[in-house]
Amino acid sequence: MDFSIDEVRQTVDWLASISDGEGAGTTRTLYSPSWLRAQKELKERFEALGAECHFDAVGNLYATVKGTENPEETIATGSHVDTVVSGGKLDGQLGIVGGYLAMRKLLECHGKPKKTLQVISLAEEEGSRFPYVFWGSKNLFGLARKEDVERLSDVNGVGFVDAMHSCGFDFQESFTPRNDIRAFVELHIEQGNFLEQEGYTVGVVTSIVGQKRYNILLKGESNHAGTTLMKYRKDTVECFARIATSAIDKAKARDEILVVTFGKVVPKPNVVNVVPGETLFTMDCRHTDEKLLRDFTAEIEQDMRQIAGEMGIEIEIDNWMDEKPVPMDEKLVSLIEEVCAEQKLSYRKMHSGAGHDSQIFAVRVPTGMIFVPSIAGISHNPAEDTKLEDIREGVQALGRTLYRLAY
Amino acid sequence: MDFSIDEVRQTVDWLASISDGEGAGTTRTLYSPSWLRAQKELKERFEALGAECHFDAVGNLYATVKGTENPEETIATGSHVDTVVSGGKLDGQLGIVGGYLAMRKLLECHGKPKKTLQVISLAEEEGSRFPYVFWGSKNLFGLARKEDVERLSDVNGVGFVDAMHSCGFDFQESFTPRNDIRAFVELHIEQGNFLEQEGYTVGVVTSIVGQKRYNILLKGESNHAGTTLMKYRKDTVECFARIATSAIDKAKARDEILVVTFGKVVPKPNVVNVVPGETLFTMDCRHTDEKLLRDFTAEIEQDMRQIAGEMGIEIEIDNWMDEKPVPMDEKLVSLIEEVCAEQKLSYRKMHSGAGHDSQIFAVRVPTGMIFVPSIAGISHNPAEDTKLEDIREGVQALGRTLYRLAY
Repeated sequence: MDFSIDEVRQTVDWLASISDGEGAGTTRTLYSPSWLRAQKELKERFEALGAECHFDAVGNLYATVKGTENPEETIATGSHVDTVVSGGKLDGQLGIVGGYLAMRKLLECHGKPKKTLQVISLAEEEGSRFPYVFWGSKNLFGLARKEDVERLSDVNGVGFVDAMHSCGFDFQESFTPRNDIRAFVELHIEQGNFLEQEGYTVGVVTSIVGQKRYNILLKGESNHAGTTLMKYRKDTVECFARIATSAIDKAKARDEILVVTFGKVVPKPNVVNVVPGETLFTMDCRHTDEKLLRDFTAEIEQDMRQIAGEMGIEIEIDNWMDEKPVPMDEKLVSLIEEVCAEQKLSYRKMHSGAGHDSQIFAVRVPTGMIFVPSIAGISHNPAEDTKLEDIREGVQALGRTLYRLAY
Repeated sequence: MDFSIDEVRQTVDWLASISDGEGAGTTRTLYSPSWLRAQKELKERFEALGAECHFDAVGNLYATVKGTENPEETIATGSHVDTVVSGGKLDGQLGIVGGYLAMRKLLECHGKPKKTLQVISLAEEEGSRFPYVFWGSKNLFGLARKEDVERLSDVNGVGFVDAMHSCGFDFQESFTPRNDIRAFVELHIEQGNFLEQEGYTVGVVTSIVGQKRYNILLKGESNHAGTTLMKYRKDTVECFARIATSAIDKAKARDEILVVTFGKVVPKPNVVNVVPGETLFTMDCRHTDEKLLRDFTAEIEQDMRQIAGEMGIEIEIDNWMDEKPVPMDEKLVSLIEEVCAEQKLSYRKMHSGAGHDSQIFAVRVPTGMIFVPSIAGISHNPAEDTKLEDIREGVQALGRTLYRLAY
C-alpha cells in the first residue's frame, strides 16, 4: 500500500484549485460557490470509488463504504473543506484528500472493509466567512444552535441562512445521535514549526491544548514625558512591560508545552512624548494539562494585580475565552505509533497547540490525529506548504491506521 | 510693589478669551484671526502704559520703555502668544501677561527704568498650526530659514506664507543681530507636577533638559500563538518588554532628573493569537547634563542591541532628535533666588523637563526662567490651571527681578 508522489500532488492541487476570488492562495469559505463546487466534485470522486455519498442537512458530506462483517461499526476520517480567505492548499483539505487517497488505495489493495469506512468532508471549521467556528463538526453531534447563527452576516451583508439556502442546505429539523463511530482519525498539517525544528515527518497527536484568552486594561496617568519625574509616574506601558516579562519568564521556566503570548498592545495616546495613561493588551495562554493551565493563569493574574497595585495602576482583567484541553484516545495514539514504527516513518508524539475538528469529536468518540510538518510553520497564508514526501508519509500513516481499524 | 488677585485674574482671562473656534479652552494658532487680534490688542494695552511698540517682519511684538541712564542695554521678558488647539489659558500667555503686569507696576511704583525694559510677545513656539516650532524666538535671532517653512501647510491646506501675508507679515529681508539684550527672563507654568508634589509655589529654573528621541524597529518572526513553542519564538513584544523594563530600571537607579519614556508601541499584526513578528516603539530620554544623557542613551542602545541579539531579533535604532541641555545663566539664577528669598516666596531651584523659548535665548543672551505650579501637572488641555495665588507669586518674582536688573 504505497502512495506515489504524483497521485498525492494531483489530488492536493485539484482540491486547492477550487477557489473563489482573484487573490493568492485558496479562498473557499462556507456556502460560497467554490465551497459548493468542492463538495459536489468530492461527492462525484467518492462515488467513482464506489462509495455511497450523502449530505446532511447543513452540507457535511459523508462518503461511505459499508463493512462486510460489522457494517454497524464505522471507522471515520476527514477534516474541514472550508478555508480562510487567501489560505493555503493544505489546512483542512489535506484531511479530506488524505481520506480519499487512503480509501481508494484500501479498496484497490484490500477490497471492501470489514467495518464501515467513512470519509467526512466537514462543512466548516475556520469561522472565516461568519463569526462561528466548528459549524460542520458541531452539527454532526447536534451541538450547533440555530439561534447562534441565524442573525450572522458576512462582510458583504449576506445572511448566514440565505447563504445556506442558496447552496440547498438548511438547519437540521431533528437530530439523531450517531452511535456507530468507533474511531475518528484526522490527518492535518501541524501549522507550527515543531516537527520541522525537531526533524520529524509525522506527529502523533496526544492532546489538543486548552486555551485561555484575556483582555487586560491598565489605567494609570497620562503625563508629560519631560516634566514628570519617574517617581511621580503611573506609566501603563512600563506596567505592561513588567507583567509581560515576568509572565514569559515564568512560562519558560514551567515546562516546554506552556505558551503565553502578548499579541496585542495598545497604549493611549500612543505618542512619543506622553507617558501612556492607559494600555490595553491581550494574553493568550495554552497548555494540554487543565490544572496546570488553570493554576498558571491564576498565578499570572495575581502577579498582574500585584505589579499594577505596586505602581498605583488600576487593572481590569477579562478572561473571555476558556477552552479545556482535549486528550486524544490513548488506544488510537498507541495504534498510530505502532503503524508509524511498522512503516519506518520518522514520527514523534506531540500535542497540538491549535484547535481542530478533532476536539469536537474527541470528547464523544475515540479520536486520533496525525500531523505532517508545515514548512517554516506557516499557515493561513498562500505560502502554507509541506514537502510532498512528508504529505505522502502522513497519508501512509492514515491509510495504515484505517486498515488496522477497519479491515 | 504688590499685585492684586483681581488684576492678575482679569489680565489672564482677557488674553485667554481671545480664541478661535468653538471648542473648549483657548485656540490661538500662528497667523489665525485670534492670533492677530491678540497681538494688536496687546500692542494697544502696552501703548496705553506708555511703551513704544513695534512688530518685526514676522510678527513678534516688542513693547519697549527706554532706559533713562543706559538705554542701549535692554532687560527683556516675555513668552509666546500662540497656543495649541484647545489649549489652556496659561501656557506661553502667562509670560506675556506677567511681563505686562510687571511693566505696569514698575512704571507706577518706580517710574522709568535706568536700562531699557522690553516685553516680547513672541509669535510662535508650539508648532501646532504648522509643523515648525520656535518660529518667534528663532526669527528674533535670525535662526529661522525661509526654506524650512515656505512649503508648509496647515490641516486645511492653507500655506504658511499665505497665512503670514494675510496678517500683514512676511519673511525678514535682512537680519541685524541684537546686541542690546543684557538679560531675558521668562515666566511660565511648569507643565509638570513637581512643584505641586514637592509643595512649592515658585520654581527657579537652572537648566532646560536635553532630549533624545528614537524610533526603534524590532524584526522577529510572526508565529501562531498556539503551535510555536516558546523556545522557537522571535517575539518582538517580549523583546520590547525586556528593553523597556531594563532601561526604566536603569534610569530610576541613575538619578532623579533622568527620565525615559516608551510612549508609543505598535506591534504587528497586533492580534491576540499571533506572536508579533514586528514591533515599532519610541524612546524619549531627557536630562540636564549633556554627558550623562549621551552616556546613558549609549548604554541603553547597547543594551537594546544585546537583548535583541540574544533573541535573534533584528533591531533598527533611529535617533531622530538630539537636543542638547541648555543651562540658565548662573548670575540670573542667583538673582531670582535672592529676590524670592527677599519676598519670602516658597521657591526652589529645579530644571525644566520641557522645551521653552528660553532655550533659544539662553545660548545667546543671559537667560533665566521662573515657573509656577501646574495643578495636577496638566497642560496643553483646557483644564490647564494654576492657583491665582501662585500666579501672583510668580508675577511678583518676575517684577522684582526686572526691577533689580533694570532699575
